[in-house]
Amino acid sequence: MQVFYSDTQALHDPRFFLVRGRSEASPERAERANVLRAAVQRLGLEVRAPEPASPADLLTVHREDYLTFLETGWADWQRAGGGAEVVANVHPSRAPASYPRGIVGRAGWHMADTACPLGEHSFEAARASAGCALGAADAVAGGADCAYALCRPPGHHAFADMAGGFCFLNNTALAAQALLGRGLRPAILDIDVHHGNGTQAIFYDCVDVLHVSLHADPAAFYPWFWGYAHERGSGVGEGWTRNLPLSLGTDEHAYLEALEEALGTVARAAPDVLVVALGLDTHEADPLAAFRVTTEGFARIGARIRAAGWPTVLVQEGGYPSPHLGDNLERFLDGFDTAGQKKRAGRLPARSVGRSLWS
Amino acid sequence: MQVFYSDTQALHDPRFFLVRGRSEASPERAERANVLRAAVQRLGLEVRAPEPASPADLLTVHREDYLTFLETGWADWQRAGGGAEVVANVHPSRAPASYPRGIVGRAGWHMADTACPLGEHSFEAARASAGCALGAADAVAGGADCAYALCRPPGHHAFADMAGGFCFLNNTALAAQALLGRGLRPAILDIDVHHGNGTQAIFYDCVDVLHVSLHADPAAFYPWFWGYAHERGSGVGEGWTRNLPLSLGTDEHAYLEALEEALGTVARAAPDVLVVALGLDTHEADPLAAFRVTTEGFARIGARIRAAGWPTVLVQEGGYPSPHLGDNLERFLDGFDTAGQKKRAGRLPARSVGRSLWS
Repeated sequence: MQVFYSDTQALHDPRFFLVRGRSEASPERAERANVLRAAVQRLGLEVRAPEPASPADLLTVHREDYLTFLETGWADWQRAGGGAEVVANVHPSRAPASYPRGIVGRAGWHMADTACPLGEHSFEAARASAGCALGAADAVAGGADCAYALCRPPGHHAFADMAGGFCFLNNTALAAQALLGRGLRPAILDIDVHHGNGTQAIFYDCVDVLHVSLHADPAAFYPWFWGYAHERGSGVGEGWTRNLPLSLGTDEHAYLEALEEALGTVARAAPDVLVVALGLDTHEADPLAAFRVTTEGFARIGARIRAAGWPTVLVQEGGYPSPHLGDNLERFLDGFDTAGQKKRAGRLPARSVGRSLWS
Repeated sequence: MQVFYSDTQALHDPRFFLVRGRSEASPERAERANVLRAAVQRLGLEVRAPEPASPADLLTVHREDYLTFLETGWADWQRAGGGAEVVANVHPSRAPASYPRGIVGRAGWHMADTACPLGEHSFEAARASAGCALGAADAVAGGADCAYALCRPPGHHAFADMAGGFCFLNNTALAAQALLGRGLRPAILDIDVHHGNGTQAIFYDCVDVLHVSLHADPAAFYPWFWGYAHERGSGVGEGWTRNLPLSLGTDEHAYLEALEEALGTVARAAPDVLVVALGLDTHEADPLAAFRVTTEGFARIGARIRAAGWPTVLVQEGGYPSPHLGDNLERFLDGFDTAGQKKRAGRLPARSVGRSLWS
């Protein structure tokens, strides 16, 4: 399995986020990637450093005003006497609003929460992270069975024009869009413990890309406002969004049952490629966790997804520092790969890559 | 002139707000009221403590889910392990969203920014503050020429269902609504340095209440997303909103010219009563200020508004601790009162109170 990671990603290393009225150290630190990379190396997988995502790549998913904010916002913030990182404190919310010129206003326009402090090099790191997702999508579009993008900062909470939840650029959506650009129809399966609200919004009224997300019930968990079962897409996209919110405390058995249901939904859409938004924060010891998946459970999850038979782009999303983080990735990738070897031995259906979107 | 103030208002005394990525002491502290009250006392005005606003009063302007949040949110926040005050960190923003059950989500739903930390007694204090506005409206509806509501926490940034900018309950809107309930048609003139975004939104599609606001250009100043000249109301309310954004650094001369224009707009609407959202933060030394109004300028502003001849409800909005805050209020009220004495001496048009809204 090809793995994509660039050291440039470490340039984003935020100092704090505001949580329940307190300033706390962010769990989405550069060191996360070191732990994940060590797991990849233990498996003997080759790591490639891709090119950063280009402006043209980013515009397939993101709005230009948002990209300008990410590129120039930190310098504007410094000129305005702001703190070390851009952190929004005022939001346009639900009232019809106009786009402001000032940086404090633009920060609020383009940031859904306080969990995405934008530092001097955050955009550069995020473009490198997005490059990993594009590299992995390109590998699979080129014929590889699977590829793993070690993305961080993560992406699935980023909207077309808003950062949120540690995310700036939606790596998962960029991978899906790149596959579409190669004539392949992707389906997205988001197994992060948090609903992939940004990804959902990007494809909400779109018939091209199925989005299925398994996550903690947002009534009581981040991202709070999205991820409910009643959200099913809109317009021609009606029915192409599926949310499977699960109760806080969900155990591995119930989780695997829900995964089965999610994979059934994916199968009915008959995609050419599966894009997995791979959160490891469903683990029982994750600092943000709500579920009780075990380390060995990740091997089962990986195996089950691989056994479904689609060429697969794995995009790293959440999963935060605990003594188990590296092991969780290692077991997921090992379970995934072992199932892939069985498949290559002829025990699973042939891959469908190469079928055009419209064939 | 009757003055309304209650000691209960001091129960809201927030500890911090997040500004440009840093936690700072809030300038909207309980001590503000002491400074303003001392100014009132120097003028020898009688201060009455009104009843707090009732739930029925509040529902004339605010949504029930928001009032429930204000009433129960702090206790829910404590149970969820939150900090000393409720401060939102995640917002529904522009994407279609569902109302969450959890308190962190509800805080984000009901708070537009981080400048309105909700403490244990904040709602009680806000209801007392709203009671002052209702007391002053009642006095004027009952025949008084004018009354002054020493409201704090202030109100004009509060929406029907959101706190924002130090504001929880929209005192100015509640006063206007109370006048409507007495068959009187109010016009609102907001002279705070910040646009009255909450008040505007509450009456945006409403033909009953003209809303005219003079304020610093939101392209470069709080509240950033609202207060632009192109915002003119919607539906039947089209034309009943008027914004006069002024450049940062506007001096007193230019300010008084803009005030003249605002009063001309009010005159064309021929209201029964004027409600003034009285910010003192246009002063040249205000810690949040953007304009260069002098202390003596407030006497001119007060006199000019009183000379326009409408029965007037004065509702305190912004104006933050500086050595001049008390003097600014004193000079405003003195200028206002002196002009009123001239009016009673027959040199100004008779008041129009008692004319019904529909007559």
